[in-house]
Amino acid sequence: MPKVVTKLVSWDEVVEWSLGLARKIEGSGWLPDMVVAVARGGYVPARLLCDYLGISDLMSLQSQHWTEAARASQKAIIRNPYSVEAKGLKVLVVDDIVDTGETLALAKDFIASEWKPEGVRTAALQWISPVAKFKPDYYYLEVKDWAWFQYPWTRLEDLTQFIERIFREDERAKGGLSEDRLRSLFIEWYGVKPEDFGSYWRLALDRLTSKRVLEVKDGVFVLSKPRK
Amino acid sequence: MPKVVTKLVSWDEVVEWSLGLARKIEGSGWLPDMVVAVARGGYVPARLLCDYLGISDLMSLQSQHWTEAARASQKAIIRNPYSVEAKGLKVLVVDDIVDTGETLALAKDFIASEWKPEGVRTAALQWISPVAKFKPDYYYLEVKDWAWFQYPWTRLEDLTQFIERIFREDERAKGGLSEDRLRSLFIEWYGVKPEDFGSYWRLALDRLTSKRVLEVKDGVFVLSKPRK
Repeated sequence: MPKVVTKLVSWDEVVEWSLGLARKIEGSGWLPDMVVAVARGGYVPARLLCDYLGISDLMSLQSQHWTEAARASQKAIIRNPYSVEAKGLKVLVVDDIVDTGETLALAKDFIASEWKPEGVRTAALQWISPVAKFKPDYYYLEVKDWAWFQYPWTRLEDLTQFIERIFREDERAKGGLSEDRLRSLFIEWYGVKPEDFGSYWRLALDRLTSKRVLEVKDGVFVLSKPRK
Repeated sequence: MPKVVTKLVSWDEVVEWSLGLARKIEGSGWLPDMVVAVARGGYVPARLLCDYLGISDLMSLQSQHWTEAARASQKAIIRNPYSVEAKGLKVLVVDDIVDTGETLALAKDFIASEWKPEGVRTAALQWISPVAKFKPDYYYLEVKDWAWFQYPWTRLEDLTQFIERIFREDERAKGGLSEDRLRSLFIEWYGVKPEDFGSYWRLALDRLTSKRVLEVKDGVFVLSKPRK
């Protein structure tokens, strides 16, 4: 069993899930006038929903919770809060996945109280029902067993953090790791193969060395900053 | 020669071009603090650039120009203009393609004068150099022969308008078209095959009939609204 069960989501799945989500929204008989993407996770599904539902009014709001892949940080906050005229409009707030649900709930509440639209509903591709404190009005998939769904718009960031985490937390990484050894620990930790990330694997290692998180010594990768 | 030369852009190309664009931005030594997507076209590339450049601050601004696929409408306008605090920040404004360039130029000017950041630069996956009145600071591909680049986030909207246009403008569609006949006129008009659009083809026909733009009479599709 991997430490962090990770599922790679493909672009084809993103399209299929977004189409399914659009069908659910249409089926409810409630058609939004405006779509608001929760930055940054909601950007791609929000854009696709605009296409599938025929909505031209697209905005975004930055509601943040996660600071590091597969780990929760403090409370959610709205970054750059701003107001627009939304009187009489039906607003759909979109995120990729509802995990704790805090970011989406906060964005919804902010829009309801500050933008004062006629109505606000929420939608997400996935809803992790056992852990979420908030259930979106619309979702395409209910996830019953928690996993880190690795969407294609956060490949490099997640992968970089995944690798760094092995170096920081796995005792076996203390003396450094050859790339082959790193690859096998990666599979053990995340249950997915480095090859599944294509060219991102190399980009992630490059980022870690150029940011001096890792350095290469005698052909092995070593953590260059002290452990937190 | 098709009337509207159309190129279908795949998700893999979007990733490849966005990675290439990120590399050009990094190579220039200018790293933005904030990314602003031009809604709606810039959403996906902006989200990907945030991943590739490690930027967490993502906003959007709606600058619109096109109202119908492959046709220009009036002047560009900023919809829902709003201001945020951007003092001291370097802002990168992102769109998918620079065609006339009006939407991106307008968004840039608006941000420069209203948000007052330290600097604003622009980026797009593609720049159609012979027609654009504006050259973005960063672009991945220069397009020398105009074509309608059909991005995956506007498949349904474009396809619906492509089909409608045949019915409105092609004399041969006057008495109605069987689906087979429509398919062959489509190839003639756009130079791409209906099959290349996968399940969107059916969705587009469904949308046109449910919106009563088209109706089905004796097994052929007929325009139900009078020609403009």
